[in-house]
Amino acid sequence: MSDDSQAQMDKARAWWDTQIIDIHPGKIGVRGYPIQELIGRITFPDMIWLMTRGDLPSRAQSKLLEAALVASVDHGPHAPSIAIARMAMTCGIDLNNAMASGINVLGDIHGGPGQQCMELYAEIRAAGGEDLPSTIDRVLHEFVARHGKIIPGFGHRFHPIDPRVAPLLALVDEAAREGVVNGTYAAIGREVEAALRRRTGKAIPMNIDGVTAVIFSELGFPPPMGRGLFILSRSVGILAHAWEQSQRHERIKGPMPKEIPYTYSGPERRSLDPDR
Amino acid sequence: MSDDSQAQMDKARAWWDTQIIDIHPGKIGVRGYPIQELIGRITFPDMIWLMTRGDLPSRAQSKLLEAALVASVDHGPHAPSIAIARMAMTCGIDLNNAMASGINVLGDIHGGPGQQCMELYAEIRAAGGEDLPSTIDRVLHEFVARHGKIIPGFGHRFHPIDPRVAPLLALVDEAAREGVVNGTYAAIGREVEAALRRRTGKAIPMNIDGVTAVIFSELGFPPPMGRGLFILSRSVGILAHAWEQSQRHERIKGPMPKEIPYTYSGPERRSLDPDR
Amino acid sequence: MSDDSQAQMDKARAWWDTQIIDIHPGKIGVRGYPIQELIGRITFPDMIWLMTRGDLPSRAQSKLLEAALVASVDHGPHAPSIAIARMAMTCGIDLNNAMASGINVLGDIHGGPGQQCMELYAEIRAAGGEDLPSTIDRVLHEFVARHGKIIPGFGHRFHPIDPRVAPLLALVDEAAREGVVNGTYAAIGREVEAALRRRTGKAIPMNIDGVTAVIFSELGFPPPMGRGLFILSRSVGILAHAWEQSQRHERIKGPMPKEIPYTYSGPERRSLDPDR
Amino acid sequence: MSDDSQAQMDKARAWWDTQIIDIHPGKIGVRGYPIQELIGRITFPDMIWLMTRGDLPSRAQSKLLEAALVASVDHGPHAPSIAIARMAMTCGIDLNNAMASGINVLGDIHGGPGQQCMELYAEIRAAGGEDLPSTIDRVLHEFVARHGKIIPGFGHRFHPIDPRVAPLLALVDEAAREGVVNGTYAAIGREVEAALRRRTGKAIPMNIDGVTAVIFSELGFPPPMGRGLFILSRSVGILAHAWEQSQRHERIKGPMPKEIPYTYSGPERRSLDPDR
Repeated sequence: MSDDSQAQMDKARAWWDTQIIDIHPGKIGVRGYPIQELIGRITFPDMIWLMTRGDLPSRAQSKLLEAALVASVDHGPHAPSIAIARMAMTCGIDLNNAMASGINVLGDIHGGPGQQCMELYAEIRAAGGEDLPSTIDRVLHEFVARHGKIIPGFGHRFHPIDPRVAPLLALVDEAAREGVVNGTYAAIGREVEAALRRRTGKAIPMNIDGVTAVIFSELGFPPPMGRGLFILSRSVGILAHAWEQSQRHERIKGPMPKEIPYTYSGPERRSLDPDR
Repeated sequence: MSDDSQAQMDKARAWWDTQIIDIHPGKIGVRGYPIQELIGRITFPDMIWLMTRGDLPSRAQSKLLEAALVASVDHGPHAPSIAIARMAMTCGIDLNNAMASGINVLGDIHGGPGQQCMELYAEIRAAGGEDLPSTIDRVLHEFVARHGKIIPGFGHRFHPIDPRVAPLLALVDEAAREGVVNGTYAAIGREVEAALRRRTGKAIPMNIDGVTAVIFSELGFPPPMGRGLFILSRSVGILAHAWEQSQRHERIKGPMPKEIPYTYSGPERRSLDPDR
Repeated sequence: MSDDSQAQMDKARAWWDTQIIDIHPGKIGVRGYPIQELIGRITFPDMIWLMTRGDLPSRAQSKLLEAALVASVDHGPHAPSIAIARMAMTCGIDLNNAMASGINVLGDIHGGPGQQCMELYAEIRAAGGEDLPSTIDRVLHEFVARHGKIIPGFGHRFHPIDPRVAPLLALVDEAAREGVVNGTYAAIGREVEAALRRRTGKAIPMNIDGVTAVIFSELGFPPPMGRGLFILSRSVGILAHAWEQSQRHERIKGPMPKEIPYTYSGPERRSLDPDR
Repeated sequence: MSDDSQAQMDKARAWWDTQIIDIHPGKIGVRGYPIQELIGRITFPDMIWLMTRGDLPSRAQSKLLEAALVASVDHGPHAPSIAIARMAMTCGIDLNNAMASGINVLGDIHGGPGQQCMELYAEIRAAGGEDLPSTIDRVLHEFVARHGKIIPGFGHRFHPIDPRVAPLLALVDEAAREGVVNGTYAAIGREVEAALRRRTGKAIPMNIDGVTAVIFSELGFPPPMGRGLFILSRSVGILAHAWEQSQRHERIKGPMPKEIPYTYSGPERRSLDPDR
């Protein structure tokens, strides 16, 4: 019996095995580094990288990651994630709950385009081929056949030109010149933009998702982490809006003022069938 | 060592001890009942009662609970819980996630008044006293001093008279006549309504939270379960609206159409201090 | 300007259009029925059907739905949804929040097999063909090629025979005899079970997801509603366990007692590179 | 009618008024700063401050905030927030959903002690008095009477001495010497530690919540933002663990391996009363 117990105990312990953090009384090791050696000496983006990648970035890599994190924090209360967090704060729940309800909706459509764009870039890169433009034409053709004509990372329903793209792309170019990154994905991103113009005859410029996908790909993050990093960034906006809303002390804030009724298009008034 | 393991193992097993469900290969016991003896023989409200209370209700108790569950399923898309679930479905997440984001906001303000009203009724009942009206005047006086003048369960920001109250109260009265419940809380609820009229000089009639609080209290549920039961009921509305929304295939639905801008009242355009 | 306002206003109103519920001061109409005509007269499963389908079921249809709702409420604290809700209650959040965190994880793997099984049944039905067994062999062959060898709704990692299946299937058969349903999906489900035995040489019997998929399909629900209905059912278990946990007044309950450490398999202790 | 429409439209627009972000086609202003002037020029902690406070911090203030954000990212899978996110990833949901379920439980007990400690410090500061130790003795006495003997921010159920405290406190002292902060809250925190030793006769040292409460208070954040900032920090750990778990491709991970059963302490097997 006790042998079984030992084996079960070992299995239970291993059930929660991790390579991230090692904790003993008085000691916390993060990816092997004693926490007290990190505090005050590495930046928050360094820590994000260390936790998710297992090792520390160079300062230049970290700065590029940081720029992407800074750029994506908010896009206003028309975004469901932000509106939901604001509404949530008027329902008698706490900041953590309101943030959870908002972050939760950063799904495939609202939070996924960066990840999907990274997958597209990776597919283009893997396709190889001598001639990047014709490779991209082919990959895009297949992509549209599979997923429809919305290309993640390109075009914006609101901004003709997304003001966050140029400064971020300039930072990637600078990092490429300095050998921090190799510039492969910046080239791919620009060629996708060109291919979309060829394909459609109009400008469908790179947007925030497309340019952060360039950065995260250049830095070696896998596509799903594109969503993860976006969530860390957008959480700042969700927190700021939830907090601002909480200062207004409104109660049960609906999507529109209650004086503005919605339309009803269901069946007209009817009664239960008495024979039912 | 192996003795320690045995003790640790026992502790680990007991860590998740429950009185609700017992599972062995091929056997599922719910509060002692083999599941196959319950299926097809008890109602869904019976099962809700059995799971949360530990024993089965009488048929009459179950019918009264069922009426309350039927009454609270929905109050339209102006309710944040419903609007959030609808918005969530346009963000590329699944029904379970959309329901979670909606249910999550049924907090103290949006989902708590039923529970709070049950606490008020319980306080009135515990206060005892020969004369119910004067007991209530005193308890309400203290309640307002502590919590402000909104009395949970009474008054409605939209309905002058809540159409769900009369039929539910009639069912409680009928159950009291038949000895299913004793009617104490129905009397308390009606006297609170009378006291509020005395106190304010105007009608602040019982609402859906006040009447379901009567029912749940008559049936012996503790106040926090008032919120729990409301959540089970409102989940139906959240599901129905999330599903209806999903059939429209909209993407990233904000609180208002994007052509209708919000106002911005923050600082005017400014630049970084170059000396920072 | 005011014409524009009128148009914008109309668009804003229509933004939240619904066919489910119509609300005016003192009046609540659910799918056309005044709420006061429903309370006390229809069952909770009737209301679930009305809200999600738009019309009322017959009593026999409703009873069959109810049996499925009763059967799926709980499978104990080894299920992540239940364990999460219990852990959540020890963290200082409310029932609505704990339920949300639990319901949220009823995703494709934990809450999706019922839906996936309904899709499989629908694919088999749509495939038609004179001979059901050979149709199923072909569809299963393609299914395994696409999704791998786990067939949603069949086999159980814990129960050799799921005790919930036989009583539910008996109810479907009875309903088919009485003309309430036509029995198509019960036949498909049984033939899938037979096909899996032919295919693998061993018994991979129908489980709770497979049999509720039969019921929901017989009743005409679309596959995604299979997940939705399962959530309504499992919410009862999530609530019951969250409530039971809350009565123990534990604080910050981890997955195992804190005396049982987890293993750490990351890098050994290291220091920051001083030249970084 | 159209006048009404204009008024309703204005009200609808103002419903989502914000001072945080101003968006027009091609333009995004964050607290008045054009986003393109911020990208690459401010740090992520700067952006967190700007978004939540309305203005930019000095570089020294930002560094102190950053140290606190770095320190709190993770405390291993025994923490419910981390364990929940890991379990969630095995249920077929995405990173955003898993993070939401984890963040959601950072409630009063699991995520609130920092905020509560800030409230305690603020109460001590507001109490004023010539003699800080005796003020603290009095405030603590009242605090214990109200809330019980657990003092948020002091003592740790696992670490005799929390290794994160000394380096953070050293950074506060350095900032105080340089006039970045005034050191009031560092003094209060240390005196609370001394008072607890006087009060109980044993060491109940400051923990991570107590020292980040010092930092956030020194920097002028209101108490609820203590929870908000902690969430931003812990989100990094939640993401890292969710991501690590996803790489293991486990399915439906319960709190313990399924071979380790839980105990059941409910009623023994029983049958339905046939006369019910």
